[in-house]
Formats: sequence, structure tokens, C-alpha cells
Amino acid sequence: MIVLYDLEGRAGGRFSPFCWRAKFALAHKGLAWTEEPVGFTEKDKIAFSGQKLVPVLVDGGTVVTDSWAIAQHLDAAHPGPALFRDEQARAAARFVAHWTDSALHLAMFPLVVADIHANARPEDQAYVRESREKRLGARLEDVQRAARETKVEALRATLEPVRRQLREHPFLAGEGPGYADYCVMGALMWARGVTSFPLLAADDPVAAWRERMLDLFGGLGRRAKAAA
Amino acid sequence: MIVLYDLEGRAGGRFSPFCWRAKFALAHKGLAWTEEPVGFTEKDKIAFSGQKLVPVLVDGGTVVTDSWAIAQHLDAAHPGPALFRDEQARAAARFVAHWTDSALHLAMFPLVVADIHANARPEDQAYVRESREKRLGARLEDVQRAARETKVEALRATLEPVRRQLREHPFLAGEGPGYADYCVMGALMWARGVTSFPLLAADDPVAAWRERMLDLFGGLGRRAKAAA
Repeated sequence: MIVLYDLEGRAGGRFSPFCWRAKFALAHKGLAWTEEPVGFTEKDKIAFSGQKLVPVLVDGGTVVTDSWAIAQHLDAAHPGPALFRDEQARAAARFVAHWTDSALHLAMFPLVVADIHANARPEDQAYVRESREKRLGARLEDVQRAARETKVEALRATLEPVRRQLREHPFLAGEGPGYADYCVMGALMWARGVTSFPLLAADDPVAAWRERMLDLFGGLGRRAKAAA
Repeated sequence: MIVLYDLEGRAGGRFSPFCWRAKFALAHKGLAWTEEPVGFTEKDKIAFSGQKLVPVLVDGGTVVTDSWAIAQHLDAAHPGPALFRDEQARAAARFVAHWTDSALHLAMFPLVVADIHANARPEDQAYVRESREKRLGARLEDVQRAARETKVEALRATLEPVRRQLREHPFLAGEGPGYADYCVMGALMWARGVTSFPLLAADDPVAAWRERMLDLFGGLGRRAKAAA
């Protein structure tokens, strides 16, 4: 029995990029799980994990926090297709995770930040606004409006290594999807869950890959609520 | 008998990042090679390869162009430690190569471009200046001066996934060096060959890794002429 504590927004929306990494990793392993929704301010619900961030995985008697640690746990504790075939593959996927965290998320965040707020549960919105505005030093709507005028091309440029990889391979991990794909798709699921703003050009190979990723595992991603 | 056609600058300097990828790949395989220096304008010397870019590898009767194709050739044609253990490892390394080409080189180029010109052979300098100034739309010295005032932090930020990886692993590829390391180190060898300007902070984990990389393969990188 596996339970994933998963960020939930307004009307059942699920858009945490790190929770999506965990869900794709679970699906990759062929595992079944149930989800326990956690609002932005429901820190008490995951206090048992000794920290404040989702995803939290409870696998029998084991509690695992952090999406990377969850992926390691799944490979160590369960049979099924390996997420990481060996140490080299693990290190290679880790680089893509670091790139996603430090480059892709950073390029995407200002473009969607007001829509994240708008898609939080009403009772979480004050917290989301205050914490993000403190970090940004500006109103969320102003940051997002300015970013959409000036930073879309920078996001698309940031995605250039993804694009080049997808011109040569169907997936970032090669012939089949792997953890590198789940990291980058986590970022796109984050956007998809909060905004219909076109971050990608329609003819971008990254957009075609996103469609393939939405179809994986019986449409795991596609079934998730997309922003109106 | 393996011959590598390698970009040469002033006073024997070797600083093509793509040629460094090829040299590290040859060393990784435990192969011996000789180098045939090629100036920026000596396109005639590699005309036999049917294109105008170094590195060009001549391995017995086989001519291979493009650093990525050279690495593939070395694994296919020679025993010795694999550069790519399997298709997944190959795809993972390819992503890092694409990231290096499209993000790291781009962030580094304006910071070193006048020094590249200064370190070209005298007879190549007019070509280097004209071709680069046409691309940049400005004088090399102006581009470099402005970049050093405003773009050093952006380069260091671009290196953040490398830095995070190196906080957890001795090498980008994990416990030992691999093609991902050779790609990123190629970029740092490019800088090292043309400038003593401190692109990295002294306490940057990337700088400590650079030292380890310079020592690899009997000091292959360290023996190369560094800019004064």
C-alpha cells in the first residue's frame, strides 16, 4: 500500500512539479498508489514526515521525502522497470534534475506565478501570495505580466538542450521515457495545471514530446485537470 | 594509427572545446594519437573530410568529423573503457553535450571572445575578428568588456546544475569521469587556453573539479598551454 501526499490546488488541481516526478516514477515502476491531497498551508498533514514539503511517500512503514529520494527508494524497494539501471544512469538523471530545478523552473516561475496563486485553494491564496511576493519583491500579477512580455523567448531558449535532444531521440532518456523526461515534464505539468498561456510555440518539438508524455501510462498526465 | 586534426592558436595554443572533447574521449579509451594542428583559416588541411570544422579524426582508413560522432566511433571501433555503456548512457551524455553547446558555450563566448582573437595565430586574426564581429554586430573588445562587467554572474548561474551535481558526486558522470565531464571541461579548456580572467569564483566547487579534470590522464589538460 503506497500513499503519495500530493499538492492540491483549487478544484482538485495537481500541479507540483516535484509531485509529478514522483507520480511518473511510480507509474514507471508499474506501481499502484493512492493520493492524499495537501493544500499549500496544510503543513500539519505531513508533519509526521519531519519536514514541510510535498511529495511525501508512505510505502508500508517507510516514509520518504524529496522527489529524488523517492525515486531511489522505489528502485531499491520494488521490482519492475528500473528508473536507474546503474550508478552512471543515476548520476546522469541527477544532472537533468539539477538542470530542471536551477534553470528550467527559474525560467518558468515568473511566467506562471500569478496563475499559481489563482489556482491555489482559496484558503491557501493569502499564503501563496505573501510567500511569493516576499521572495520576488513585487506583486505576482506585475511579475507575471512583465515576464510574459519579455521572458517567453528566454524560457524557450532555456529549453534548447531539450529541443536538440528531442530532434534525435523520441524521449530525453533515449528510445523510451526515463527519469530525465519525468523531471522536465514535471515542469510542464506545473504550467499546464495553472495556465493556458502558450509557453511553447505550437511547432516546437518540445510541444510534440509533451503530447507523448501526456499519453504515457494510460494518460496519467492527460487525465490531470488542465487550467482553463 | 590515430590522427586528430586539432585547432591551433598562437604559440601552439589548443583551445577548441570540441577538440578537447575528442582528446578526453581518446584518453578515456586509453588510445594513443598524434595531433595535426590546424589554424582557423587552414580549411584546406581538412578539406579531405568534406567539411570545414575540427576536430577531424583519421583512424586508419576511417575519417570521422564532429566530436559526438568521434566519440561514437571510438566506442564502436576500439576496446577499452566504454564512453557509453548502453543506449541510455549515450542519450544522457548527449543531453549534457547539447546543454554545453546551447547554454554554457553561449554564456561563456562573449566573456572570452576578444581573447580568442588575441590567441589566434597572427595570420588567422583578421578572419577570427571579421567572422565573430559579423555574428555579434560589434567590436570583439567592446563585447568582451561589457560582458565582463555584466555577464559573469550569469555564467556562474548557468553552471548551477554542474555545481549541484559536484556537491554530490566527484564527477558529473558520477564516481568516475565520463563524457558529460569532457563536454563541460571542454568549455573550461576553451577559456583556459585564451584568458586568465577569473570566470569562476575561487571557492566554486566547479573550480575544484576543474583541477581534478586537469590532472586526469596524466595531466592531459594541465600540460596544455594556458593563457598568460
